[in-house]
Amino acid sequence: MQHDASQGAGRSTRRSGRKGKLATPRRSDVVRGGLPGGQFQPLSPAQQDAINQAALTLLEAVGMGNPTASATEILTGAGCQLSDQGRILFPRALVEDTLAKAARRFVLHAQNEQHNLEPWGANVYYGTAGAAVHLVDLETNTYEDSSAIGLYKAARIVEEMDNIHFFQRSMVARELTDLQDLDTNTLYAAIKGTSKHVGTSFCEAWTMQQGLELLHYVAGGEEAFRKRPFVSQSNCFVVPPLTFAQEACGCLEIATRAGMPVLLLSAGQAGATAPASIVGAVTQAVAECLAGLVYVNAIVPGHPAIFGTWPFVSDLRTGAMSGGSPEQALITAACGQMAQYYDLTGGSAAGITDSKLPDAQSGYEKAYTNVLAGMAGVNMVYESAGMHASLLGVCLESYIIDNDMLGACMRIIKGIDFKPESLAVEVITKTCLEGPGHYLGSDMTLSLMESEYLYPKLAERWSPKEWVEHGKPSLLGRARERMDAILAQPQPEHIPLDVQAYIEANFPIKF
Amino acid sequence: MQHDASQGAGRSTRRSGRKGKLATPRRSDVVRGGLPGGQFQPLSPAQQDAINQAALTLLEAVGMGNPTASATEILTGAGCQLSDQGRILFPRALVEDTLAKAARRFVLHAQNEQHNLEPWGANVYYGTAGAAVHLVDLETNTYEDSSAIGLYKAARIVEEMDNIHFFQRSMVARELTDLQDLDTNTLYAAIKGTSKHVGTSFCEAWTMQQGLELLHYVAGGEEAFRKRPFVSQSNCFVVPPLTFAQEACGCLEIATRAGMPVLLLSAGQAGATAPASIVGAVTQAVAECLAGLVYVNAIVPGHPAIFGTWPFVSDLRTGAMSGGSPEQALITAACGQMAQYYDLTGGSAAGITDSKLPDAQSGYEKAYTNVLAGMAGVNMVYESAGMHASLLGVCLESYIIDNDMLGACMRIIKGIDFKPESLAVEVITKTCLEGPGHYLGSDMTLSLMESEYLYPKLAERWSPKEWVEHGKPSLLGRARERMDAILAQPQPEHIPLDVQAYIEANFPIKF
Repeated sequence: MQHDASQGAGRSTRRSGRKGKLATPRRSDVVRGGLPGGQFQPLSPAQQDAINQAALTLLEAVGMGNPTASATEILTGAGCQLSDQGRILFPRALVEDTLAKAARRFVLHAQNEQHNLEPWGANVYYGTAGAAVHLVDLETNTYEDSSAIGLYKAARIVEEMDNIHFFQRSMVARELTDLQDLDTNTLYAAIKGTSKHVGTSFCEAWTMQQGLELLHYVAGGEEAFRKRPFVSQSNCFVVPPLTFAQEACGCLEIATRAGMPVLLLSAGQAGATAPASIVGAVTQAVAECLAGLVYVNAIVPGHPAIFGTWPFVSDLRTGAMSGGSPEQALITAACGQMAQYYDLTGGSAAGITDSKLPDAQSGYEKAYTNVLAGMAGVNMVYESAGMHASLLGVCLESYIIDNDMLGACMRIIKGIDFKPESLAVEVITKTCLEGPGHYLGSDMTLSLMESEYLYPKLAERWSPKEWVEHGKPSLLGRARERMDAILAQPQPEHIPLDVQAYIEANFPIKF
Repeated sequence: MQHDASQGAGRSTRRSGRKGKLATPRRSDVVRGGLPGGQFQPLSPAQQDAINQAALTLLEAVGMGNPTASATEILTGAGCQLSDQGRILFPRALVEDTLAKAARRFVLHAQNEQHNLEPWGANVYYGTAGAAVHLVDLETNTYEDSSAIGLYKAARIVEEMDNIHFFQRSMVARELTDLQDLDTNTLYAAIKGTSKHVGTSFCEAWTMQQGLELLHYVAGGEEAFRKRPFVSQSNCFVVPPLTFAQEACGCLEIATRAGMPVLLLSAGQAGATAPASIVGAVTQAVAECLAGLVYVNAIVPGHPAIFGTWPFVSDLRTGAMSGGSPEQALITAACGQMAQYYDLTGGSAAGITDSKLPDAQSGYEKAYTNVLAGMAGVNMVYESAGMHASLLGVCLESYIIDNDMLGACMRIIKGIDFKPESLAVEVITKTCLEGPGHYLGSDMTLSLMESEYLYPKLAERWSPKEWVEHGKPSLLGRARERMDAILAQPQPEHIPLDVQAYIEANFPIKF
């Protein structure tokens, strides 16, 4: 494949004429992405201080093992020490200096600017993520191999979901055994399917170049992409506890130099690769993400990095992951608080379920983890929709089911509108003393109908009689119908068709 | 039916020997009923003050319409005025005096004392309630008529559920068209099926006498029941907005004089029988329950009464109830705060779903409403399990499914255990620098396994492979199996068999 960056750059004029084609996003008036959470504070300020101090102690005394030569050079150059055991030790002052200069309040761009994210403070966005290896077929209840076309369908569905605000790669294109093919197709399936902010990951440093070329072409040149990087890199730079993942470090360096925001993802598992105590798992993750933050800022000071404290919970009886557990809800909420403690953009995981299928278990596990993540002010709630089997499976119908749940979570985060007139003393008085003795047609009811009450898109509120009259349709069946309708629409054109054609002719696109 | 109260009293000696037979309740070590909530505070202190003031204003200026002669006599005797419009007006000082002397910190007893409730402060208990007219048959997906035997089965199932802490009548025995039969059988089905605290309701004052006789017989005499009243009366004394329900008022007077705790239940529907604003609906419910509190305390000062602010949410497009909505989660949480504002035992509804079946929608709607009710410190969370179709249907399997969800809610309420050693600095340091590089067999992991991590009873955490090996059993199928196993056990004997036999021979028991 030959690709000349100037070709991309040459497209910039043409691209500027394209914005008018973008559809207005279907946003509810009642909720929107970015409403501020922070109502739930499981850690006290003193406890947050203690976690910070413990993390700094760990970075100073234990540091990170298994550095690459490049990481060693970069980090010792920035003021770290290399220990006798070959570990990189991080002086407290260096971490604190990094925190002082780290990027804050950076926009995460979307191809459609109306989907731009402002993930700071306690602003909450729900999105996808994952590296599931299965796609769940609900017609046969089968865990099939996930694929590039499955990922593309997922992106297209998420594009239509009001309450899923960004799309990080959720499944592995298992049919693509070549790493270059895998990474390029994964990236393209996501950005072709949705105009929302995309997160993806790369297997190794050498596979990234092709992806960057593709992104520059879509953006209309490298500078255009650097100005509005609409794709971030999800990077598992650490193998917990406190050990560098060498391939990921290579990708991290390239992404940082290429102006691509990075998600510094520390995914320990409490009781297995992280301490069993919730506080200990959070502390270790904080230490690891601070190490990553020093690393990124040593490469490019102020480069946008998401503080991805993302510890999972184990079922301690078996060691199996249990992402739908109540302990997971607490651990993720605590992580959200720690990102706010540092005033960094925080990303953590919620909405995981241990159930294999979209059922009552998956419903309740997803709900309590997602609502508490949002209420804790996690800026980027990853994995919030579509996942099953503690992230091993994706179910496309679940994106549609979960979208309503996430809307409800956001409505709860929005909270209670309290104005003097909300007390309704006059309304109640008049209704009781002058009639009609109910509020059905009152001005208050009519005015609040569209501003304070959220109406689900898929979930039903029929009476039993109406439900029978409709033929007792199941939630899964209705989700399937909606999915089929979305996928039957013309393919998205936020990437103009000629650009798509060029990419599909000149890059190894295989779906 | 002839029944002599002295017969019941004569059983008191025999009954005292029975306690040894009671099974030790199966309580998890990790969670238990009564853990304190209060982490979620959607209303500020000033907003709570404003609601209180608005409620006092309403009681003073609007009061309650449609009083019975008896209510008028009792309330004017206590200091209320009868308005020209025939409404009872409540002077502020009277309400404040009532609040000063109202019962606080009263135990709600259970036949098995180990299930006694201490519903004060922010202590949280989850339980059932409802007047569903349908029982959901999951084999045919049919909404059948609910019945006395269905209610008895529900009580037996709840008896076995660790995280359902009390049993209020959840369905109507529709085959019993005679009001006396209905009330007596409803009461007996509940107390025969479970040794937990029972709530029930009565249709009219004249049907109560038989129920009291039955209770006295089971308790071993009237004094024994008055000392440990293990049944409370759910009483809808108000037809919102601000109107007395006359039959219920008759029952309320009898229950109060009989020493039976009462749930003062104000069940308006925002946008229909209550203002559409969340704050207005809460304000009206607070005013109504304060009126009820004055009424009860005017009959018997200090009689135990649960502050049952219980407003529901309407779908304002249709007027249909929407108990699974996010607005419902907020309204219930705000009610929990108001009960704590007055330091009264508060009871409100959560765990309602609009879905007809136990599916993903019911899972997420139940989860976010229940977890937020608990986190707000609602003392008695009614309707928390088993309900569907916005309370029109009960599904027995759902009690078993919901029990795990309620355990998770309670685990979240329990929060994060934060001790200095929870930070795990030494554990992490040793693991990284001396090995083994993971925490699977560490002392911390083993010690926290049984104290900090909750394991579900029904929900599954299999890998996809294990799930296939088990034959891909559905959640509903497994719930059905567990239900069948519970109902196949010998019938409960917390009421000794000879007492059961006497009651079934001497009262009109029809199931």
